[in-house]
Amino acid sequence: MISHNKRIPVAVLGATGMVGQRFIEMLSRHPWFELAAVTGSERRAGQRYGEAVTWRLPSSAPPPAALELPLLPPDAEFDAPIVFSALPTDVATEIEPLLAARGHAVFSNASSYRMASDVPLMIPEINGDHAGLIARQRRERGWPGMLITNPNCSTIQIALALKPLADSFGVKRMQVTTLQAISGAGYPGVASYDILDNVVPYISQEEEKIERETQKILGRFEDEAITPAPIVASAQCTRVAVREGHLACVSVELGRDAQSADLIAAWRAFRAEPQERKLPTAPDPAIIVREEADRPQPLRDRDAGNGMAIVIGRVRPCALLGHKFIVLGHNTVRGAAGASLLNAELLVAQGIVG
Amino acid sequence: MISHNKRIPVAVLGATGMVGQRFIEMLSRHPWFELAAVTGSERRAGQRYGEAVTWRLPSSAPPPAALELPLLPPDAEFDAPIVFSALPTDVATEIEPLLAARGHAVFSNASSYRMASDVPLMIPEINGDHAGLIARQRRERGWPGMLITNPNCSTIQIALALKPLADSFGVKRMQVTTLQAISGAGYPGVASYDILDNVVPYISQEEEKIERETQKILGRFEDEAITPAPIVASAQCTRVAVREGHLACVSVELGRDAQSADLIAAWRAFRAEPQERKLPTAPDPAIIVREEADRPQPLRDRDAGNGMAIVIGRVRPCALLGHKFIVLGHNTVRGAAGASLLNAELLVAQGIVG
Amino acid sequence: MISHNKRIPVAVLGATGMVGQRFIEMLSRHPWFELAAVTGSERRAGQRYGEAVTWRLPSSAPPPAALELPLLPPDAEFDAPIVFSALPTDVATEIEPLLAARGHAVFSNASSYRMASDVPLMIPEINGDHAGLIARQRRERGWPGMLITNPNCSTIQIALALKPLADSFGVKRMQVTTLQAISGAGYPGVASYDILDNVVPYISQEEEKIERETQKILGRFEDEAITPAPIVASAQCTRVAVREGHLACVSVELGRDAQSADLIAAWRAFRAEPQERKLPTAPDPAIIVREEADRPQPLRDRDAGNGMAIVIGRVRPCALLGHKFIVLGHNTVRGAAGASLLNAELLVAQGIVG
Amino acid sequence: MISHNKRIPVAVLGATGMVGQRFIEMLSRHPWFELAAVTGSERRAGQRYGEAVTWRLPSSAPPPAALELPLLPPDAEFDAPIVFSALPTDVATEIEPLLAARGHAVFSNASSYRMASDVPLMIPEINGDHAGLIARQRRERGWPGMLITNPNCSTIQIALALKPLADSFGVKRMQVTTLQAISGAGYPGVASYDILDNVVPYISQEEEKIERETQKILGRFEDEAITPAPIVASAQCTRVAVREGHLACVSVELGRDAQSADLIAAWRAFRAEPQERKLPTAPDPAIIVREEADRPQPLRDRDAGNGMAIVIGRVRPCALLGHKFIVLGHNTVRGAAGASLLNAELLVAQGIVG
Repeated sequence: MISHNKRIPVAVLGATGMVGQRFIEMLSRHPWFELAAVTGSERRAGQRYGEAVTWRLPSSAPPPAALELPLLPPDAEFDAPIVFSALPTDVATEIEPLLAARGHAVFSNASSYRMASDVPLMIPEINGDHAGLIARQRRERGWPGMLITNPNCSTIQIALALKPLADSFGVKRMQVTTLQAISGAGYPGVASYDILDNVVPYISQEEEKIERETQKILGRFEDEAITPAPIVASAQCTRVAVREGHLACVSVELGRDAQSADLIAAWRAFRAEPQERKLPTAPDPAIIVREEADRPQPLRDRDAGNGMAIVIGRVRPCALLGHKFIVLGHNTVRGAAGASLLNAELLVAQGIVG
Repeated sequence: MISHNKRIPVAVLGATGMVGQRFIEMLSRHPWFELAAVTGSERRAGQRYGEAVTWRLPSSAPPPAALELPLLPPDAEFDAPIVFSALPTDVATEIEPLLAARGHAVFSNASSYRMASDVPLMIPEINGDHAGLIARQRRERGWPGMLITNPNCSTIQIALALKPLADSFGVKRMQVTTLQAISGAGYPGVASYDILDNVVPYISQEEEKIERETQKILGRFEDEAITPAPIVASAQCTRVAVREGHLACVSVELGRDAQSADLIAAWRAFRAEPQERKLPTAPDPAIIVREEADRPQPLRDRDAGNGMAIVIGRVRPCALLGHKFIVLGHNTVRGAAGASLLNAELLVAQGIVG
Repeated sequence: MISHNKRIPVAVLGATGMVGQRFIEMLSRHPWFELAAVTGSERRAGQRYGEAVTWRLPSSAPPPAALELPLLPPDAEFDAPIVFSALPTDVATEIEPLLAARGHAVFSNASSYRMASDVPLMIPEINGDHAGLIARQRRERGWPGMLITNPNCSTIQIALALKPLADSFGVKRMQVTTLQAISGAGYPGVASYDILDNVVPYISQEEEKIERETQKILGRFEDEAITPAPIVASAQCTRVAVREGHLACVSVELGRDAQSADLIAAWRAFRAEPQERKLPTAPDPAIIVREEADRPQPLRDRDAGNGMAIVIGRVRPCALLGHKFIVLGHNTVRGAAGASLLNAELLVAQGIVG
Repeated sequence: MISHNKRIPVAVLGATGMVGQRFIEMLSRHPWFELAAVTGSERRAGQRYGEAVTWRLPSSAPPPAALELPLLPPDAEFDAPIVFSALPTDVATEIEPLLAARGHAVFSNASSYRMASDVPLMIPEINGDHAGLIARQRRERGWPGMLITNPNCSTIQIALALKPLADSFGVKRMQVTTLQAISGAGYPGVASYDILDNVVPYISQEEEKIERETQKILGRFEDEAITPAPIVASAQCTRVAVREGHLACVSVELGRDAQSADLIAAWRAFRAEPQERKLPTAPDPAIIVREEADRPQPLRDRDAGNGMAIVIGRVRPCALLGHKFIVLGHNTVRGAAGASLLNAELLVAQGIVG
């Protein structure tokens, strides 16, 4: 692990997009990492970042440190041990292995390799031990670098909500319906004419991702492989007119009897490695339970823990599966850029990267 | 059954509210019914309807026939065999029995008496035979009139979607998450500051209503009583920034094996008494199945069948319960005013009223 | 003028876009015109219209008559004396003269030739006599066909509101601020992430169009040329989260003293050639004045006169210019497809086309 | 002036409403003022603030310091030299003079006394010298305390934008159209059914307030009286579906010739007493000019200078009045709570209060 006196140079791939901008913003005040390189589309390569980007986050302009960086083409070479990828899936599929082969530790938000058997699909509060896959990955692929992925923006908060339940009671079956923010579709993403006074009850591949990523994330690492958790999961995903914050209505069947109060107690007691290690981007607590009848709400709860905490509410019995509740997470922070950052922080803290 | 040469005079209670306005609008072009009286709050009683109402429907003004009617106080006496109630629950609880006692046939949209054992909770396409309760109701309560209710605005479309499945396959368990329109909360209802860029994941008493009304609606009428259908139901209800149209994401366990195509066939084959009798407000078909990946949508599908049809889409397997799908209904038309109207039309056609 | 026993075949250029869809919809019930050909992008040419189009209008599907028409490439040849153009500006610039040269009467919604000195910029209620330019146009350009344009979607309603004032009092100066609907930007147009909980106070070239088109529209036709009306005009244009309906806040200085009541009287008395001739798409009245304090509103007034009437309200004194008022028009109906249609109807009725 | 070692106790009247909550939030981190008392409606008086309030600001809960304060009735007596009033107009009319008579310095956001000839209508960057009215006010009314008001939420940003122009060039005439946020109407305020997919082109009394408050604010203080600035002003006000941030489209006629660049230079050079004195709530700069084609935007610019700066853009020639531009201000911060706070800070700094 390199000395923290000197911050580790990092690169952001796909730096002008919605998630790319979140990376840039979150890195601008990061104590361990220093933005050293940014890549974008061929078309705009060569421009300064400040020139190439149309800044769309609520903060009124990009951070000063990023403005003067030259935007590199997607396949550029650069010096930065850590790379954050906000690439679109098709580009990620091609570029990410290339960078791992060049020796970078790639922390990817793309879905391309999430389900690969030698690639960790990691949420530091849940499955930091899945980093054990990396040794096999490097050996089998011959990479001096490595590739670590984080889950889909709606999976993260669901998996995080399930983790303390799995630990305390076991989780057997889950039904979830999501109401997802427009920022989840990137930019320009959802046309205003499609969503104003409307709901779009379909997000391509999202239900499949939630169902199978949840099983891998909560799976067991043994003998350099992940055994998926045997959770029967079913998801329905919708898009609503909300800027940021994915809401999930969850019904869950536990492995043993419990009361709502027991679930709440399990969530409130939850602390994991990122909290113990006080990683810079780790929220503490990671899970907030609210008791008002009408929370969590995207507008009012998405910024909890600087967007890195998840907020749970309306915990109550379910006639069908035993328990139901609502969980909210900030989809471009906890569900994307912040997820990759936290993964990188964990591996740096564990001495695997840096 | 009275001759149709002369239209039956009807009254609307609570005529200035959101659902009241829908009644007025739908009655303005009704072939059997003629608006004869309107009631409103004490405060505005005595004004002409055109003066008392602030018209909020998309049509730019109230229908001419209503403009000059005097707004009567809630407990006014009037001549009109049929009464449509859009009263708030507390007022309905008091006034509706009074009117039944005075000899009116009251078709109520309020929740006050929906679960009373001698009051039909009726959807003509599903349980016209529940009208059999009326005889007992009149006898036991000593009413010359009668009281018939329609379900909650989000229950109707769910029950209607389940009916053909219950008939063909049996329905054992159901999980539903709703995304409900702001008009469902009446006017002024939801404050814009609460819903713009937000979701409110709570609607008071709504989940309970869906769970137990569905059982009564699909129940069996025998010996002057309803045996609730033994469907295990669990609901989660949310409010979204949509003007009209409640969307429901449903998972369902059937009584026997079936494929998605079998469900679609059952829905498409569905025709019931209102369609057979060609009741004026009956949609034909009552159930529309769309095959696009991203339908139904509130904005694009709520006006199907003049707002009286329900639209189903995304029929697909569910890992948990076997089948899942999305269903949409227009909450202030099919889910409220149109529901009462169709109930009245059925009883007129059956010769019970009029 | 051709016999009306047989409807005139018409073509729609750019038929899959937002305005193109409005053309298709309005033509589906047109008594004089019959949809005979549709063109679209090269990429989708060859598909059936029903296959090529993603229908986005509130009606749930394209009209049956259009579904089976083959989508022709932009430069296709076809038989149809009348052509409606919903082409993007760059394509219109190239294709429209070509079609006029082939003998078609082209009614264009594009901005390419609006300000050309030999091309009528026509609103039938205002300047039907500008059709006099056509003789010069055909002679000088050697076209067997012709090209007639309609104004920008926000200009039309403003010009229409000014016309009766110009006739009765003279109009010297005008300031206008518009609040324009997202549909004005086409599809996908405005990204939801840019407009939800926001206003974009800029629409490229829109202010210039309003300022100079108004002068040409209200100009005088003499000696085969238009002398622009000497109205000093200044516009500020903004985009708001509204689906359809452009709102304009207008201040105006008249040529002589008048009271608000005089303006209202002038608007209410206004009837022009389309109303006299009872053209199929002509609203009657063309101008509606509402007296409520808070009208017109896009949601509640955009469909007045089937979207072809404009609605004026809040007529009151202006400390600066004398008078101020609000005017609303449906931007994709009166402001686009309906505008072209009405132009064509007028020329057919005048015997110039058909 | 009291020592700043000890913070000055302050009270907030109407503390549970929208503006009241902003006061509470801004005071929670104030270096000079300490929240000592809160008042609310009779109905909730006696409850703790944390119990009485339904917190609606984006921060997820009220600041801890406020939670335990008892909510006092409107006419309660309390110890706090400085009082901030977020009372509704009718209550303010009655209560504010009472409190001034009891010796409090009342900083009011209500409109009741803004136009009274002995009450300062103050914006510290513009007319700190209007505080000179206080001596006359106390003398004539026999008040040991005093009453200072701040302008209407949409006037403030307009007056602030005009100030540097008035100083450098003179301002003769102004036309303004506003697009105002829903929070300006308080809570529950605008019903979602009235504003979703809509604009309401009317806000009661708003246009009159802008027109005449601007003249008083920019007026000259002499001989213990204000001579209104002779600016001919005309306003049109609309409500749009935006949470926070009033946008104003301004046309202005200056006293002498100038170029857009001259106006921009005047705005950029502007610094006033609050900036010189580094008052805690003073933004620096107070006026930000942006050069992008499409700014300012409510969503992206409302938080500039912690919501206390105004943002100007689209400075360009106006054919009618010479110049036009767009200006944005945060209506519940700069336009309400922050305005009162800054007034209080100025008078404390000047030694008039505290």
